[in-house]
Amino acid sequence: MNQKDVSGLVDEIEAAWNSHDMSRFAACFAADADFVNVAGAWWRGREEIEEKHAASHADRFKNSAMRLELAAFKEISPGVGVMHVRWQLEGHGESGPRRTTDTRRGIWSWTVREHGGKLEIVSSHNTDVLAASPISPASS
Amino acid sequence: MNQKDVSGLVDEIEAAWNSHDMSRFAACFAADADFVNVAGAWWRGREEIEEKHAASHADRFKNSAMRLELAAFKEISPGVGVMHVRWQLEGHGESGPRRTTDTRRGIWSWTVREHGGKLEIVSSHNTDVLAASPISPASS
Repeated sequence: MNQKDVSGLVDEIEAAWNSHDMSRFAACFAADADFVNVAGAWWRGREEIEEKHAASHADRFKNSAMRLELAAFKEISPGVGVMHVRWQLEGHGESGPRRTTDTRRGIWSWTVREHGGKLEIVSSHNTDVLAASPISPASS
Repeated sequence: MNQKDVSGLVDEIEAAWNSHDMSRFAACFAADADFVNVAGAWWRGREEIEEKHAASHADRFKNSAMRLELAAFKEISPGVGVMHVRWQLEGHGESGPRRTTDTRRGIWSWTVREHGGKLEIVSSHNTDVLAASPISPASS
């Protein structure tokens, strides 16, 4: 797995989100990918991932802008890797565990696999970082 | 990868949690494993995973009891798999995104790898399921 493909995937997810083209977004996922969102909803398969995101991008994420930053990548087996991506979201409607329109920040884990000459996300799990809350230090 | 190892890992994490033996708990993880907890804290490596859990099990999780249920498993490459595990936690102090002592439920993603004749967790990401909240449907 090469660094260019890894960075390219981050760029593509960011661009897809910000263009609100959820078909483009979903194309980054394996056909049978899993997606656990920040509220613990679990979506299964590229089709459901596209459908749920299309619904939210027609609504509270319509004018949202997301910035992504690759925080870590490691290959865990030939052709399979784990990526950790930090994100910041602005311009959204009320959303997230705090139901807020304030800037949201989070950490997103992707398990990725080489497939047909590119990387696809096989498993995705996303969480708002709540550490900044005075009543909720970074603890479970 | 065989079903017995997959189920065995779920049982071992559950038993380790409920015995509050965080050295046993951490032994289920790869030396360089990643762990993103429900508040978005990101711990790196078996040592930090043990240390943070030992701290919480000396405190708010001291008398907690967790039940785990394997919801899905798939092999994504030879010797590498993705597991989704549902959990329910009781007997804990104030914790989770809601800072509650009420029963908590969640969904936990594990990326696992065969290593030395057993499965180890390479990447772990955990989230409280907030769907039950009247103000927060299962949406991001």
